[in-house]
Amino acid sequence: MFTVVWLVKKRADLSQEEFARYWIDEHTPLTAATPGMRSYRCYPMVAHDGAAPSFDAIAFATFDDEAAWRVAEQSPELQAAIADAVNFQEVDLTQSFYAAEHVIR
Amino acid sequence: MFTVVWLVKKRADLSQEEFARYWIDEHTPLTAATPGMRSYRCYPMVAHDGAAPSFDAIAFATFDDEAAWRVAEQSPELQAAIADAVNFQEVDLTQSFYAAEHVIR
Repeated sequence: MFTVVWLVKKRADLSQEEFARYWIDEHTPLTAATPGMRSYRCYPMVAHDGAAPSFDAIAFATFDDEAAWRVAEQSPELQAAIADAVNFQEVDLTQSFYAAEHVIR
Repeated sequence: MFTVVWLVKKRADLSQEEFARYWIDEHTPLTAATPGMRSYRCYPMVAHDGAAPSFDAIAFATFDDEAAWRVAEQSPELQAAIADAVNFQEVDLTQSFYAAEHVIR
């Protein structure tokens, strides 16, 4: 499996609740339509150490392999989801990663 | 389920490989001993947008509920894991969160 991770920063003018509602209800159906996406899990988050949160959400998507991700990345479906990002997130502050999953327990 | 998320920044003097090896092989057995922890998944990450990574790893742990987490947080096992953190991460840059899981696909 090839895992893609996005750390998402909400748009400053949205509350965490407004951000999470739009993200889960409006945006994730667009992203979930990406061809070859095997799983897609989303985590709206609240910092619990009293500090300003560095990010407000994490999303994980898995693909069979890197080649499947390369196809998905160029798909009209994912491009449509990316075009929607400005509606809820600070796009410049969002970061994307490749990750290795270790199930410890 | 109550989900706790840690965004982890590696110590600047370690390579991503050195960091991931220590984290997975040496540190996660300590954290996994925390009482009441139902699941524990770890993701060493590499940024794929060419930017400097904001964080180098994510860890997820689940507990039955917030009360179980409060007990876990004070446990000697988790305190021992926290004491080990200086061996691989920039503790001041690490952030912890509570998260809601949405399995979209």
